Formats: sequence, C-alpha cells, structure tokens
Amino acid sequence: MVNFELTREYIDNLQAFIEAKDENAVSALLEELHPADIAEIYEELSIDEAKFVYFLMDDETAADVITELEEDDRKKFLDSLPSDVIAKRFIDKMDSDDAADVIGELDDQRQQEVLSAIDDVSTAGDIADLLAYDEDTAGGLMAKELIKVKESWGVPTCLRSMRRQAEEIDEVYYVYVVDSDGILKGTLSLKRMLLSPVDVLVKDIYNSDVISVKVDVDAEDVSNIMDKYDLVALPVVDSVGRLVGRITIDDVVDVIREEAEKDYQLASGITEDVEASDSVWQHTRARIPWLLIGMFGGILASRVTSGHLDLIEQFPALSLFMALIAAMGGNVGMQSSAIVVQSLASGSIGLETNWRKLLKEMGIALLNASILSLLIFSYNKIIGEDIALTVTVTAAMFSVVVFASLFGTFIPLLLNKIKVDPALATGPFVTTMNDIIGMFLYLTIGNIIFAMMA
Amino acid sequence: MVNFELTREYIDNLQAFIEAKDENAVSALLEELHPADIAEIYEELSIDEAKFVYFLMDDETAADVITELEEDDRKKFLDSLPSDVIAKRFIDKMDSDDAADVIGELDDQRQQEVLSAIDDVSTAGDIADLLAYDEDTAGGLMAKELIKVKESWGVPTCLRSMRRQAEEIDEVYYVYVVDSDGILKGTLSLKRMLLSPVDVLVKDIYNSDVISVKVDVDAEDVSNIMDKYDLVALPVVDSVGRLVGRITIDDVVDVIREEAEKDYQLASGITEDVEASDSVWQHTRARIPWLLIGMFGGILASRVTSGHLDLIEQFPALSLFMALIAAMGGNVGMQSSAIVVQSLASGSIGLETNWRKLLKEMGIALLNASILSLLIFSYNKIIGEDIALTVTVTAAMFSVVVFASLFGTFIPLLLNKIKVDPALATGPFVTTMNDIIGMFLYLTIGNIIFAMMA
Repeated sequence: MVNFELTREYIDNLQAFIEAKDENAVSALLEELHPADIAEIYEELSIDEAKFVYFLMDDETAADVITELEEDDRKKFLDSLPSDVIAKRFIDKMDSDDAADVIGELDDQRQQEVLSAIDDVSTAGDIADLLAYDEDTAGGLMAKELIKVKESWGVPTCLRSMRRQAEEIDEVYYVYVVDSDGILKGTLSLKRMLLSPVDVLVKDIYNSDVISVKVDVDAEDVSNIMDKYDLVALPVVDSVGRLVGRITIDDVVDVIREEAEKDYQLASGITEDVEASDSVWQHTRARIPWLLIGMFGGILASRVTSGHLDLIEQFPALSLFMALIAAMGGNVGMQSSAIVVQSLASGSIGLETNWRKLLKEMGIALLNASILSLLIFSYNKIIGEDIALTVTVTAAMFSVVVFASLFGTFIPLLLNKIKVDPALATGPFVTTMNDIIGMFLYLTIGNIIFAMMA
Repeated sequence: MVNFELTREYIDNLQAFIEAKDENAVSALLEELHPADIAEIYEELSIDEAKFVYFLMDDETAADVITELEEDDRKKFLDSLPSDVIAKRFIDKMDSDDAADVIGELDDQRQQEVLSAIDDVSTAGDIADLLAYDEDTAGGLMAKELIKVKESWGVPTCLRSMRRQAEEIDEVYYVYVVDSDGILKGTLSLKRMLLSPVDVLVKDIYNSDVISVKVDVDAEDVSNIMDKYDLVALPVVDSVGRLVGRITIDDVVDVIREEAEKDYQLASGITEDVEASDSVWQHTRARIPWLLIGMFGGILASRVTSGHLDLIEQFPALSLFMALIAAMGGNVGMQSSAIVVQSLASGSIGLETNWRKLLKEMGIALLNASILSLLIFSYNKIIGEDIALTVTVTAAMFSVVVFASLFGTFIPLLLNKIKVDPALATGPFVTTMNDIIGMFLYLTIGNIIFAMMA
C-alpha cells in the first residue's frame, strides 16, 4: 500500500460519481484507502456527500473514519445522524477511549441518548466511566481495553485468557500482571512470552519494574513520562493502585503535537486553535484578541510619548529611533520568554532555582546589551549623529535590552508559579509590554540627556 | 516503580558519596533507577564524577544511559574514554540505530577506531550501513533489528525463527513478511499469532496492507505518516522494495518534539538549539543573530523616518503613534506567517492553491483592518485628537494590517516553494520587515494627509 496523496482531481472525480449516485464507482475509488485517508477526503465533502459515502462503508471502516476526523467536521457529521445509528454503527466498533472522546463532544442530552442505545451494558459502562475524567488527564487519555493476567496463574491459563482478551484489542503491546485485588504488580513482555518455557508461573517471570500513572495525572506529564522512558503503552491506576486502563503512544503523540501547536500559536498571538483551512470568520476571531491588546498597548505607548511631546517638539530627531527601541524590547523579550516557556513545557527546567535563572538571564542580557549598544553607538558616530541623540539611543538600547530580558524571564516563571499557562506570557503580551517600557525608557533617558547636553 | 523526581538534595548526597569514593553507597542510590533517570543525574555531574558512576554500572545500563544523554553531554563524556571501551562497553549493547547515532557524533578518525574495535563484524557492518544515511531521513532514523519471516514458511518454522530473532530485540511490535528476494510483502501481527492455529502458512494469514517508506524519505514526512496512520513501527525499504530496517515510534516522538521546538525557537528569534541549562555564552550566541537583524531593520526604519523629518518637525504629534503602527505591523505579520508555517509543517495545508490562500488572507486582513482602524479612529475622536493626525493614523492602521497580513502569508509560501524552511520567515524576520514597512506607510500617508488638510 502506497501512502495516499489527496488531489483536487480525485475529489472532483469522487464528487461527480456521488452526484451521479454511482455506488460502484464510489466504492471502487475508496476501496484501497486507509480510514485516515477517507477522513481527509471527508473534510472536502458536504454533509450530504459524506453521508452518501458513509452508507457504502462497512461499520468497522466507518467507525475508524469517524475517529480520524477533525473535531469540527465530526461534530457536524454526527449532528446529522440519529443517536441509535451513532451508537450501533460507530460506538460499538470503537476502542473505549475513542468512543468516550466522540461521545464527550456531543451535547449532554445526545450523550445520554447514545449511551442508552448501546447494546452491551459493560461497553456503555466503560464509556460512562471514561467520560467522568477530565480530558487533559491520564484518565481522559486512557482506554479500558487491555490484557491482564493474575500473578498466580500458570503460563497455559495465562495464554488461554490472553487469546480470549486479545480478540477485542487492535494491538497488544504489554500484558499487565495484577494480584487478586486487581492491584497492578508488573508487566509480562511479549518477547518474554515468546521465549519462556510453558511450565512456569506468571509471578516467576513478570517484570515488576513497571512505570504507571494515577488517573488524575496531567496529560502533559503523561507525555513527558512516556517520552522520557520511551514507553509504547503506560498503565493507569486508581488511587489505591488498581489497574483501570492504559494509554497508548499514538494518543500521546496527539497530545505532544497539540501542546506544541498551542504554544506556537500563543507565541504568535493566536488565541484559538485554527487551521489554514478554517473560515475567514474563525481566523479573525482567533486573531483579533491579541491585536486589540497590541493596539491598547500601542495607545498606552502613545500616552507615554505624549507626556514628552515638548521634548520631541524641541528635538524631532528623537523620533528617528522610536521604532528601533520599541522593536528591540519586543524581540529580546520574546526570546527570553520562549526559552523559559519551552523548558517549563518539556520538564527540562533543571535544578536551577528561579533566582539563579534570573541571575543567568541577567548575564546574557548584559552581554547582549553591551554588544548592541556598542554597535548602535558606532553607527551613530559614523553617520555623525548629534551627540545627545547618540548617547540617548545608546543608553536606551542598553537599558531596554536588560529590562526586556528580565521581564521576559520573570513573567512566565511567575505565571507558572501561580498555575497559569506560561505560554500566555509570550508573543504579543511580552512584545506589547516591552513596547511601552521601551518608549518610557527612551524618552525618560532622552529628557535627562538632552537637559544635560543640548 | 515510582516516577523519579531529581532534587538538589539527591545530587548533593550523590556527590558527597562520590567524593568519599563510597562505591556501595553510590550503587545503592542508583540501584532502583531507570537509565533515563541516571542520564538526568549525569547532566548535573562533572566528567570525573560521571566516570566514577559509570564504572559501577553494568554494561547494559551504562549503554542505555549513554543513549539517553543529551548530545553535548554525551560527546564530552565519550571524548574522555578510549575507543575500544566505547566499542565494547557501549556499542555492543545498543540497538543499531542508537549505536549509529552515537558513533555519528564522534569525529571521523574516532568513528573508524570505534567501528574497527567492535568484535562482531556484522554489527559493525550494520552500523556502517546506517552511518551512510542522512540523519534527517528514514534511513537515519531506522534500526536494523527487526523480526522477519518468509511468506513460504509454516507457522512452526516461523515461531522457531522468531524466538531466535527475538533474543536480540527489546520490544517486538510487528513481524515482517518477505519473499525469497527479501522484498517486503506485509506484516504478521502478534495478535494474529496469538489467535492462529498452528497448521497454516505465513502467506495465508499475513496482512498485505503494509505502509512502508523508502530510505530517503524525509524525517518530517516519516513522522507525519506514523502520526496519521497511528503506527507504532514503520518498515523501511530500499529502492527496489527490499526490507532494510524499521523505525519505531519513540524515535519519531523525538523528531516531532525537535521539529516543534525548532519552529518555536525560530518563531521566537532563537537560531540555535539552546536549553535553559546551557551557558550564558551559548545563549548569547543563539540570540544575537536575530537581534542584530532586528537592529539593522530598526536602523533602516530610522532612515525611512529621517526622510520625513521635516514633516515631524512641523507636526511632532505624528511621533505619538509611530510605535503603535510598527507594533501592529509586527503582530499581524507574526500571526499570518505562523498559520502558514504550521500548516506546512503538519502537512495539513489542504487543497487550496497558494492564490486562494492569499485571497482568503486578504479577506481576513480586510476584516481585521476594518475593525482596528474603526477603533483607532474612534479613540482619536474621543480624545479630540487633531483631524489630520486622526485620518493619518486610521489610514495607516488599515494599510499596515492589510499589507503585513499578505506579506506574512506570502513570504513563508515563497520560501517553501524554493525549498527553504518557511519557519525562518516567522518571528523577528516578519516583525522587522513590517516595522520598516509600517514606518514607510505611516509617514508617506502622513505627508499626503497633512499636505491636504493641515
């Protein structure tokens, strides 16, 4: 099977066949495709076209396609279907974690309808259990499907039970070992199963070095643990240590991607999760909040400037470097805050205390400030700029770089301490604050220098 | 085993024991730890302390610790050891992909020394093969260790061969099926092995829907494919389709993290991969290039302003909104470029042509520009600002938002087209360019308006 590449032509063809209600041609086009590819195609179709395609797929494929859809598209599609169709065609065929995610996106009444339309009570119960967890915790990420064996079993009992349990599960990564109370004791690796003689007990061959998390552990911590220890699956236990589920690496890859995208978007001043393919209105809604904050900051900077307008009236050349000083404050602050946010996110913050971090940032800031102010001083000397302006720009450059560095380091550390996402402090927030501070420093220094020298 | 949390106290204790050369106490402290935890500890120790600890570990653990170290720390540590110790204590115990990564970091002469010190010629050959691939391709990510069976085999032959092959491999995710020429035909899932009767042939039960990549596929594409199709392992084939290796999800998680971190850092104006724990000098080196570019941009903006200094002399109030207009250009440009860069990176760019994207961005830009210029107009009316200045600021706001949006969308698309990393276009580059353009638009519009109205 070759990796499928979606083209405009393919969609045009497909839509023509759907238009003509040519079921055979549509089926033929979709036949070889992976559900993830069909989901990509779905995103280009109208609801009615998607429904036509959906009736041609078997239940298993249809369920996988639904799981792979983007949240918005899925919601729109499911809203057009009756609750019992959702329950019987999709939910029954999904892993419990995917089923809980899909049902969790519906509104409360529909959730109840779908849950009560599920035939198998234990499946419905599993999903209801999972719905109770916050989606950003280990409980929200885990699936109920796993293979467990008792430590007291012999290998033959074990193999029989595993065969039965394996029928429900897509991929088997680990076999979990529990005691008679259901407390997680360890794992039995499949490699070990392949290599062991048949006459030993589980308790003699299992590996007790198992890393697990409690249901309420944060999703970001789960991803850091799985990444650090290179785990493919991570068992989840309740508050007394009973095994209640497992998290697989593919769910965590999604968490990692989403966290990285969110941080990147926040750093770029985008407040909602948008994709290039979203509508003009969605884009505007995601972008306007930070632009308004930026404008508010710019207006404050203009108030600061306005307080020194007499100085500018006397020495209009001061206006030459206003944009430079404001921009340098923004750039320096963005760099400093990005370093802090990234090290907080990856958990690689190290053992340095916050005071040591600020001290080190002070060192970096002084070095950068010295280089940059020396350069701007030389530039001004070379073009033969007025000496008062030269001194003002040089001193303002030095102080804005130092101040913006410390500010950019301090704010995310503070937000993290008071449990606010430090990524909020990056991008437009830091640049806007530093614009205002830059104007203030530049004009205050200008006032002093020009009073002394001019 | 509980997730280990590194503390200052723990390190102080450990260092005291190392100082006292108390081998038993050091071993006791490290005994229960995962190699990834020991690697974290290593990063806090001096080379001599690390060497002391290293002699107390068994070969397997020592090799795992080396694999888990950060590149810089690993290089420093390995540089202090003779080549044959590296070959015999570490390389022999590593998976071929990790071994190739570690050896690839050494300089050429040391690579040769280590390779020729490896006892097993076929291991050395595998590593030499892997060293030939670019590290950002499927070949650079893959390991040679995998389990393969021939399609003509019966299940008993298959099981015997798998038992033998499994001894060398940490975790078995898939069993690959090849024909007599070694061409990849499909996979045999472990679940299928658990459920199958013993008297069938491999060719009757294997799954031929296998997704594979060629050795020269880009690492980012590999991660997108594994993510899209939720794969735990991905087979790699050569140009004629022979199975040559497999990539596991943990390596791809690292690629995803690194790509996301790189994009985030570029967007924040940081040019080298730095961590919070790196030295002041490393930080300065990573930050100064963009600050210099930003300063150069600011100087250009001052030249633009200087060309209109007579206007500012006449109407000093124009200086009030210089920082605002420059900042808005920067913010808008950053948002627009971030959307493009992110959709290019995740491969979710959709089917829209570049022209359609620019057209849509134009729609978003016009909407944002209308809202923002209406607000700044109202603000100026409310505070009773001079009418010429009000019109200038309003018109400049409108044009800078539109222009910066298009510019922020166009540049990364252009870079992508000419095969330059579009992430380079974000952050300081776009903000700096837009500062200059903002000044230019503001003062040009000011000249026209004030000539007409004042």
